[in-house]
Amino acid sequence: MKVLVDFNLITLGTGLSISKYIADCEKILQKYGLETNIHALGTNIEGEWKEIALALEECHQYLHEIGVERIFSSLKITSRTDKEQHIQEKIDAVVQHLK
Amino acid sequence: MKVLVDFNLITLGTGLSISKYIADCEKILQKYGLETNIHALGTNIEGEWKEIALALEECHQYLHEIGVERIFSSLKITSRTDKEQHIQEKIDAVVQHLK
Amino acid sequence: MKVLVDFNLITLGTGLSISKYIADCEKILQKYGLETNIHALGTNIEGEWKEIALALEECHQYLHEIGVERIFSSLKITSRTDKEQHIQEKIDAVVQHLK
Amino acid sequence: MKVLVDFNLITLGTGLSISKYIADCEKILQKYGLETNIHALGTNIEGEWKEIALALEECHQYLHEIGVERIFSSLKITSRTDKEQHIQEKIDAVVQHLK
Repeated sequence: MKVLVDFNLITLGTGLSISKYIADCEKILQKYGLETNIHALGTNIEGEWKEIALALEECHQYLHEIGVERIFSSLKITSRTDKEQHIQEKIDAVVQHLK
Repeated sequence: MKVLVDFNLITLGTGLSISKYIADCEKILQKYGLETNIHALGTNIEGEWKEIALALEECHQYLHEIGVERIFSSLKITSRTDKEQHIQEKIDAVVQHLK
Repeated sequence: MKVLVDFNLITLGTGLSISKYIADCEKILQKYGLETNIHALGTNIEGEWKEIALALEECHQYLHEIGVERIFSSLKITSRTDKEQHIQEKIDAVVQHLK
Repeated sequence: MKVLVDFNLITLGTGLSISKYIADCEKILQKYGLETNIHALGTNIEGEWKEIALALEECHQYLHEIGVERIFSSLKITSRTDKEQHIQEKIDAVVQHLK
């Protein structure tokens, strides 16, 4: 199932700066060949749900292995059958109405 | 990976009432043997991430098969290594501070 | 504007247990007379958006005052004009399809 | 209270394409002078919480006035006291770890 996802991750008990852990997950997403687009409060991901679900699990497990004891992720998952959906096209669809 | 999840589903292009579709997904979650707790804007789910990810995919695919053309799901996913986490215990942990 | 909201709060840099801080916010919501329903990963809130927005600000500000340096809240906000929406009715609407 | 927000809006009962309604809200956010950054599944917003809460209410109310009967918004709200937070800096903080 092709999906467009928005993913956000927070680590608890690791201090105030969590960008290093977010980057660790970003590298795992890229290792899976998933297309991503980083924004200020998360990452858009485009791909197969099975691959994304595996990548997210690897991300949580990797962070637990390096000592992060509690992780809180947020996901938005969209799927549609009427047409394909891609990161840049979704942005363009809104922006064209703003001109 | 054991996780505690909050799941919310919206269908687009299907009118204003979506409770039937939410119930369809609830039945799929229960078929997988996952423990759930329905609230006003979603469902808590306790279980293995691999099973939950499969159940969510089956839910999206089932709704697409019966004609829903666009689906938007939201997930919160928490995992922790310091102790087990269960739906009722999480509720109790907050409620005990309110007494 | 009447809304039905789901609210979740996480504190960063405060250790692994955050239920005390969630309870602090719950007390503030109740002080505003808002109806709430605690679940395992958040709280349903029913009321006027202006009041809820004020209560959420007071919650963040109170936690910052007692030393919490970083706060991450998630909200779902639903409004509709076709009928009123209440916490218990939303739950019942799903549950009736499960019988 | 200065906050960094991620905002996503879905309209129900309006068909499969909702980019026009998202753009309507984007214009309202810009009218309030709020800095925004559109991504594929939402918009980052930087500003005062009171202004953002007002803008979101105006957005829901405007859409209801033009006939949208049900609206579902998702928000992430972050506040911190240890340092200022800006959209581009948050992105840069992650990206620097990827080099």
